[in-house]
Amino acid sequence: MPTPTAFKLEYVTAVLSRTPASLDALLRGLPEFWTHHNEGGHTWSAFDIVGHLIFADRTDWMPRLRRILEYGESVPFDAFDRLGQVQESQGKALDQLLTEFAKGRDACLRELQGVNLQPTDLERRGKHPALGSVSASQLLSTWAVHDLNHLHQLSRVMAHQYEDQVGPFKAYLGVLHCDAHGA
Amino acid sequence: MPTPTAFKLEYVTAVLSRTPASLDALLRGLPEFWTHHNEGGHTWSAFDIVGHLIFADRTDWMPRLRRILEYGESVPFDAFDRLGQVQESQGKALDQLLTEFAKGRDACLRELQGVNLQPTDLERRGKHPALGSVSASQLLSTWAVHDLNHLHQLSRVMAHQYEDQVGPFKAYLGVLHCDAHGA
Repeated sequence: MPTPTAFKLEYVTAVLSRTPASLDALLRGLPEFWTHHNEGGHTWSAFDIVGHLIFADRTDWMPRLRRILEYGESVPFDAFDRLGQVQESQGKALDQLLTEFAKGRDACLRELQGVNLQPTDLERRGKHPALGSVSASQLLSTWAVHDLNHLHQLSRVMAHQYEDQVGPFKAYLGVLHCDAHGA
Repeated sequence: MPTPTAFKLEYVTAVLSRTPASLDALLRGLPEFWTHHNEGGHTWSAFDIVGHLIFADRTDWMPRLRRILEYGESVPFDAFDRLGQVQESQGKALDQLLTEFAKGRDACLRELQGVNLQPTDLERRGKHPALGSVSASQLLSTWAVHDLNHLHQLSRVMAHQYEDQVGPFKAYLGVLHCDAHGA
């Protein structure tokens, strides 16, 4: 079925408001075997991913939206620190991060509601330091897809831990053949 | 960090017991825009995926485990109907499927607990109609990874709906570049 493509703020917030509870249900209390191992090298574990989502909520999405509304393209977004969560997550338990994520996300969504975006606001543009001109609606759409991106990554990272355990069934499990590693 | 690879039944059930609530938190009440569109052609929507998980719980995992314990490799598993959910999901609401999934999964896990698998049972082997000889522990591992496989697929299918909305941010979103389509 073809997708009727249309930006709706309510579609974006419908995803954003559900992600914390979904990750909480999946990860809280789960053995560290699943949550604290990665895909090798400098890739991320589920623990790292939740830390990244918290950090991005605090430093990326709403700050960039405010930048667009205040300055348009005249002042570029601050660069995002893709390793910013490492120090902030250190020494914390995953359950603690899950609670932080839910609270932070809730605060973001309340702030977003308070901005009371109008259709013309959604078309306003800002300047991404690497990607150039982007619209407010593209930024907000990306926020939601970014949640899904990391849910996609997280399910793959977890599945990877049991790659050797599934034996010949591996042939049927696309998640063990996804090559979007590190993203 | 290298993964210490080891089958533990408690690792498997830790995932299996969390998937229904995680999907419920993600999908219940979500606009059909996200849940009822697929990736084109005969690919699956989130709605189709939840139906598939229900159907697999009922007809695949525990029946195959019972087959192994009862007959070993002497009687192959019944073939799994990959479109078996289509008729059963027809006319139902996604919220109804989410409730069904949680109930069915709970029943499966209670049955699994009742079997009281011993270490030697986990090494017993059955015959997959296409893959040949597989062990009980491989079957159970696959059940958990199969959940993750479909969480991976579901996040990709949902993200796909907003592929055009993210504009230049697409470059940063691995989920929009995953080529494990249809799996």
